[in-house]
Amino acid sequence: MTFSDRPTLWAVVMAGGAGTRFWPLSRRNRPKQLLPFAGGRSLLAASVERLPPLVPFERVVIVTNAEVADAVRLEVPEVPAENVLVEPVGRDTAACVGFATWWLARRHPGAVLVALPADHLVPESAALRMALAAAAATALARGGVVTLGLRPTRPETGFGYVEVGEHVGDAGGLPVHRVARFVEKPRLDAAERMLATGAFRWNSGMFAFTVEAIEGAIRRHLPDLAAGLDMIFASDVDLDAALVAHYPALPRVSLDRGVMEKADPVWVVPVEFAWSDVGSWPGLAEAVGAEGENVTLGEVVSLDAQGSVLISDGPLVAAVGVADIVVVATRDAVLVVPKRDAQRVKELVERLRAAGRNDVL
Amino acid sequence: MTFSDRPTLWAVVMAGGAGTRFWPLSRRNRPKQLLPFAGGRSLLAASVERLPPLVPFERVVIVTNAEVADAVRLEVPEVPAENVLVEPVGRDTAACVGFATWWLARRHPGAVLVALPADHLVPESAALRMALAAAAATALARGGVVTLGLRPTRPETGFGYVEVGEHVGDAGGLPVHRVARFVEKPRLDAAERMLATGAFRWNSGMFAFTVEAIEGAIRRHLPDLAAGLDMIFASDVDLDAALVAHYPALPRVSLDRGVMEKADPVWVVPVEFAWSDVGSWPGLAEAVGAEGENVTLGEVVSLDAQGSVLISDGPLVAAVGVADIVVVATRDAVLVVPKRDAQRVKELVERLRAAGRNDVL
Repeated sequence: MTFSDRPTLWAVVMAGGAGTRFWPLSRRNRPKQLLPFAGGRSLLAASVERLPPLVPFERVVIVTNAEVADAVRLEVPEVPAENVLVEPVGRDTAACVGFATWWLARRHPGAVLVALPADHLVPESAALRMALAAAAATALARGGVVTLGLRPTRPETGFGYVEVGEHVGDAGGLPVHRVARFVEKPRLDAAERMLATGAFRWNSGMFAFTVEAIEGAIRRHLPDLAAGLDMIFASDVDLDAALVAHYPALPRVSLDRGVMEKADPVWVVPVEFAWSDVGSWPGLAEAVGAEGENVTLGEVVSLDAQGSVLISDGPLVAAVGVADIVVVATRDAVLVVPKRDAQRVKELVERLRAAGRNDVL
Repeated sequence: MTFSDRPTLWAVVMAGGAGTRFWPLSRRNRPKQLLPFAGGRSLLAASVERLPPLVPFERVVIVTNAEVADAVRLEVPEVPAENVLVEPVGRDTAACVGFATWWLARRHPGAVLVALPADHLVPESAALRMALAAAAATALARGGVVTLGLRPTRPETGFGYVEVGEHVGDAGGLPVHRVARFVEKPRLDAAERMLATGAFRWNSGMFAFTVEAIEGAIRRHLPDLAAGLDMIFASDVDLDAALVAHYPALPRVSLDRGVMEKADPVWVVPVEFAWSDVGSWPGLAEAVGAEGENVTLGEVVSLDAQGSVLISDGPLVAAVGVADIVVVATRDAVLVVPKRDAQRVKELVERLRAAGRNDVL
């Protein structure tokens, strides 16, 4: 069974998010998914362009926020402008997927949808499409909700995990398992134990479900969200005005915590393709470069630099004798941080915000 | 005896030099002496402004090059514009002092002059003036040439040394000695041995002599230079045209090597004041900050940075968790280099020049 020639498979690309960890390249009006981290192309463009032929552009829905909506439309002009749904404010992934689901339900009630983030790097597009097709087929054949389970490569404490349960069958050449349980972002020792058992997968944030199944699950597990979305999509109001009026009051919760962890059944399709969420500057280096190599972007000159991330979006960056450091230069701000401290960029951005430096945020 | 109320003491401030070691802050049209390294003021302005009341501004002569002459006049407007002498090309310190000497000899043949670089940091202005007065008094009373001898604080291999000989008397409260010998930039082991004896001083590059004595010494020891200067100052030619015609052919040699090492007698006034030649980015840190402290200039935000030089001349510089590193950001170029590699900035500048990047040089 394949979805490539069926009109009912839609993709929802979640393209909200601020991406402060990529400051100073990321800004309020240019978050991570618009940065040229996919071989010079933006993560968003790469995410959208790897969907066809499984999902043609006219069945791609992008959910984003008002600050970047215009930039998003310019970045992926192949996607019809009316398919770009604009949240007045971000309310996490449950509201995001709910928004797209309610929108789709009123147009294509029989649709199956895959939901995926706009800011992941997946070099093997064909393998991703095969996995999404398998997940969508599972959602259609078995009901419930489906997640892709990524093979963990390190005891990561920044991701949620799923324990892979009973093998219930196959779809599109990939095995399908029941999810035994969800594990929220663990502590390091717990992550190490899970990695050692071999029974756990990273919860990818890539899902499949029928419109009916996810709408039903949201009504059951997040009734406040469902009520808010019902108000927004009431037939006699203007959608934009209704969004501004009611979206900010939607509950702020992730789809994983708010729906997936409570839904039943939940299926997992374990996948093996290379994947990176490019969560930080060193993550970018790992995703695109070999150990010890420099990752450079833009105008960079270096003498004896190693293992460093050297990025310019304007001024010439000249690095001499540096190791394992991140340098990111833009016209109005320059970041220098050793790789091991890169997660503190968030703290720095908070400090700039507190100091009223919106001019560089 | 004091010179503060005598009209015959002049100062020659040597303000040529390219200063590539301070790239990207230093540029062809903004060398080190124009950089704001003297507590936010330029080294040049600080050098000139510490001369009065010993030498009033109208008796300060500045020798500089064509690329920066306008900037120099703007930087020290107190000095009469006609006192800014412009070399068509740099020909080292013997030609520089010779130029000023020939210029002065035709206007104030009885003058005593002190010559000093524009790019040194001397926090104690009064102590410097006292030493210059003592050196000038010695030059007038004893003839010959006089150098200030700085107490060496480390076995520096980048400076010349003088061996302090016989104590011949005092001037203005400071002792005056004969110079036993000059030692050119030594190797480290030789520098360590000199430091251990206590008998050596750094040759400061700050001198005093009568116009007659230095003109005579140049005629005797650098006859080619004297002949070239005679041509330039021949009474019936236009000075600017003569400079362009003859200055480039003057011998390129330092005053130390070309004149001081061969002159007799040579006197040294040992001085004790704090001094720095600010020869490199780490040198700047040592000159203005304590060990382990950060030196910051311009718009800089840091989290847990230590022992670093963080300088902005435009973009916000944000540094997190860095140690012993130099970050210098300008509108069009950013340098990042560990302090221990700072001398390689010269190499980097050479590489940019070879690559035709004059836009950032």
